[in-house]
Amino acid sequence: MTSTLTPELLYLVHGDPGELAEALAGMRAADIAEALRHLPPEAGAKVMAALPFDLAVEVFDEPEFADHRVDLIQHMPITAVGPLIDAMSADQQADLFRELPEHDRPRLLKQLDRTSQQSLALLLKYPTDTAAGIMTTEFVSMPTTWTVEQALNNIREVGRAKETVYAIYILDPNTQQLVHVVSLRQLMLADQHALIGGLGERRAPLSVAPRTDREDVARLISKYNLLAVPVVDEGGHVIGIVTVDDVIDAIVREQTEDAQKFGGMEALDIPYTEIGFWGMIKKRAGWLTALFLGEMLTATAMGRFEGEIAKAVVLALFVPLIISSGGNSGSQATSLIIRALALRELALKDWWRVALRELPSGLTLGTILGTVGIVRILLWQQLGWYNYGTHYLLVALTVGFSLVGVVTFGSMAGSMLPFVLKRLGFDPASASAPFVATLVDVTGLIIYFTVASALLRGTLL
Amino acid sequence: MTSTLTPELLYLVHGDPGELAEALAGMRAADIAEALRHLPPEAGAKVMAALPFDLAVEVFDEPEFADHRVDLIQHMPITAVGPLIDAMSADQQADLFRELPEHDRPRLLKQLDRTSQQSLALLLKYPTDTAAGIMTTEFVSMPTTWTVEQALNNIREVGRAKETVYAIYILDPNTQQLVHVVSLRQLMLADQHALIGGLGERRAPLSVAPRTDREDVARLISKYNLLAVPVVDEGGHVIGIVTVDDVIDAIVREQTEDAQKFGGMEALDIPYTEIGFWGMIKKRAGWLTALFLGEMLTATAMGRFEGEIAKAVVLALFVPLIISSGGNSGSQATSLIIRALALRELALKDWWRVALRELPSGLTLGTILGTVGIVRILLWQQLGWYNYGTHYLLVALTVGFSLVGVVTFGSMAGSMLPFVLKRLGFDPASASAPFVATLVDVTGLIIYFTVASALLRGTLL
Repeated sequence: MTSTLTPELLYLVHGDPGELAEALAGMRAADIAEALRHLPPEAGAKVMAALPFDLAVEVFDEPEFADHRVDLIQHMPITAVGPLIDAMSADQQADLFRELPEHDRPRLLKQLDRTSQQSLALLLKYPTDTAAGIMTTEFVSMPTTWTVEQALNNIREVGRAKETVYAIYILDPNTQQLVHVVSLRQLMLADQHALIGGLGERRAPLSVAPRTDREDVARLISKYNLLAVPVVDEGGHVIGIVTVDDVIDAIVREQTEDAQKFGGMEALDIPYTEIGFWGMIKKRAGWLTALFLGEMLTATAMGRFEGEIAKAVVLALFVPLIISSGGNSGSQATSLIIRALALRELALKDWWRVALRELPSGLTLGTILGTVGIVRILLWQQLGWYNYGTHYLLVALTVGFSLVGVVTFGSMAGSMLPFVLKRLGFDPASASAPFVATLVDVTGLIIYFTVASALLRGTLL
Repeated sequence: MTSTLTPELLYLVHGDPGELAEALAGMRAADIAEALRHLPPEAGAKVMAALPFDLAVEVFDEPEFADHRVDLIQHMPITAVGPLIDAMSADQQADLFRELPEHDRPRLLKQLDRTSQQSLALLLKYPTDTAAGIMTTEFVSMPTTWTVEQALNNIREVGRAKETVYAIYILDPNTQQLVHVVSLRQLMLADQHALIGGLGERRAPLSVAPRTDREDVARLISKYNLLAVPVVDEGGHVIGIVTVDDVIDAIVREQTEDAQKFGGMEALDIPYTEIGFWGMIKKRAGWLTALFLGEMLTATAMGRFEGEIAKAVVLALFVPLIISSGGNSGSQATSLIIRALALRELALKDWWRVALRELPSGLTLGTILGTVGIVRILLWQQLGWYNYGTHYLLVALTVGFSLVGVVTFGSMAGSMLPFVLKRLGFDPASASAPFVATLVDVTGLIIYFTVASALLRGTLL
């Protein structure tokens, strides 16, 4: 809820457009975009109209502004919207059209120039979680046969309209296939008369396919410290590039989704501070109810042991302690594995290696908690703080052994669930922690009362 | 556990160094670094010795290789290590020295040239979670009075040794203070005879202070789509720059820590696949035991209600269902707020706005679950699947009202805890989900048995 929108600016929106334009001229596009998020669309449209054209384009180009562009457009004259969209970068044009209501698209498309129409036709074919879905078509490419001097002159000519000029894609002059990538730095440092096809190292250039997952694109750019990566089709032709700034946005968005799914809900897709009340309830109620329905099995399980509880009420006292310990150990394991899967440190095929590791981990952690649990009961009994009955020693042992079993099961279930979800084609992060907790709660009760039956038969039970 | 290290390569490490160097020459530095992670340090040192010098430097410069550099150095002749470190980028030099055992530092420092010694003295003053802790000192700067032609010629001369040449820092020729930043693209497109001080827009350049949090640096670079941001001291002098690739690494590392802390454990700091068994147990056992000790309060709370449970065993059946619903709603709220705080969508002062929103959210979600719970009990009773006794209607109402209370409390506690942790100077992500669950479990029991006392007094109790 922080913003650079000053009260003066808010006032100006309703006042003189000239003064407003002056106040905004000193601001950066990203700041204006942030400020406009907090204005009603009618006022936002006025601000856009008052801005110098180039600055207005930059504001519209901000990915952070994506949720609001569509609303704003509805309040602007369509003849003003056309040139603005034409001047946007191709990836943001595509994003805008994806958010536009289906029936508005043809009307707006007609306002655009031919280049925009063509790149939109290409980009809109791909979903936004793929390389081609976040790429832009404005990149610099040249044939291998050009000299460094020709290349630099060309960049001076076309550079203004390109997303980046720091990576130059070198094509085979006959097949137009990508054969090489050089950086502007390499061009600057090279001999003016050298051929660009011969610059630098002769390794096959790094590239991604149009349908490569955007997370994998991010990993590639991050691993090799690239400023951009080319998207190459089956025929070896560059159809676009993904730049590092788009990748940062993608990483941050992806991690927000994961964090929210991990917390046991649908991803909000809109900032918490901006989503409407009922929109948020909808995203939360679904999973919460699903988990509640699953958790009802605990009532069924407890029902099976009603007789035991009636005979030994003392058993009921430790139910929350035991099932929550299983849930906590499951939550640890699941968060470790989800993150390792997301970072590609682990692959699906590694599941048994993880299982072989989590089994002794669970046993060790369970033994630690079990010991603490036994000590706690004996201590309270000896100090006279609580009376667990004549068979308090057996009760303590029941709690101790149950904890070993429950924590081990929690670690195993928590570490295996992400693999199962991924194998079934779901996002491993989906509601994992609460899901594991529910699974472990039900199983934990069964473990606890089974141990109790074995140890207390003939005494308490 | 995926790697580009082939069995042939492994064989070559123990065989002919010449063949090995040939096999590695075609690989990228990042891939060699990844392969070396899976080799014992003695073998890794052999590989480094066989690599061409420039490639060896690049491998040493990979941040992903940071954990292994120190081990490798111990197995290399110190005269070979000196030049290698001298040629590394300044930020990675500093990282290497931070990981070096205290007593090894002076010995190695003596091997370095004067420039490296000076930049190390500067960088090692700052912790790694600050701007100055991840910055590099190799940037391009020039006085305002130079022409574009002079600037371009200078970049051709010094460019090879700089981390990036795409952002050029323009200084006041008298005070050496930063007054302007131009991009290489702007230089390329500008008139050769123009003064660089007059290029582009005349806004105060974006910069960060040496002790700015690295997360805030990441946010700035991401928001304004920068390739680098200058680190400026109190006197207005540029002491270094943070580049976009360092920021991506920082974002990913930070997110891994958050995910693990959120799951209820200490951050591992080492990949799950590489950390030793006991190292991992240590990171997990601490929090697990702390949460277990907290959760013991549930046994105390249950003990207070032992009399009620003995009279109405049916109450015990719903204990897991009720406390887990509180935990789940708390987990949702806490993951939402932690993420919004991390993205700076929320600040500390917004806590009451969140509280005002989570109160009705909790009531709504609690009413939904309460209704489902009541329907479940009545349905099972009517269908004859379970007999909750003659007062089943009162039992159902007890469960329903308790759920409203517990889910509301869960949402409130889950949303407020991150603010409290942040206010106290802790990371809001620390063990939040299990911490909230424990808090809600104890309170949930009290709510449940209080509602039961009120509704069942005179009938079951």
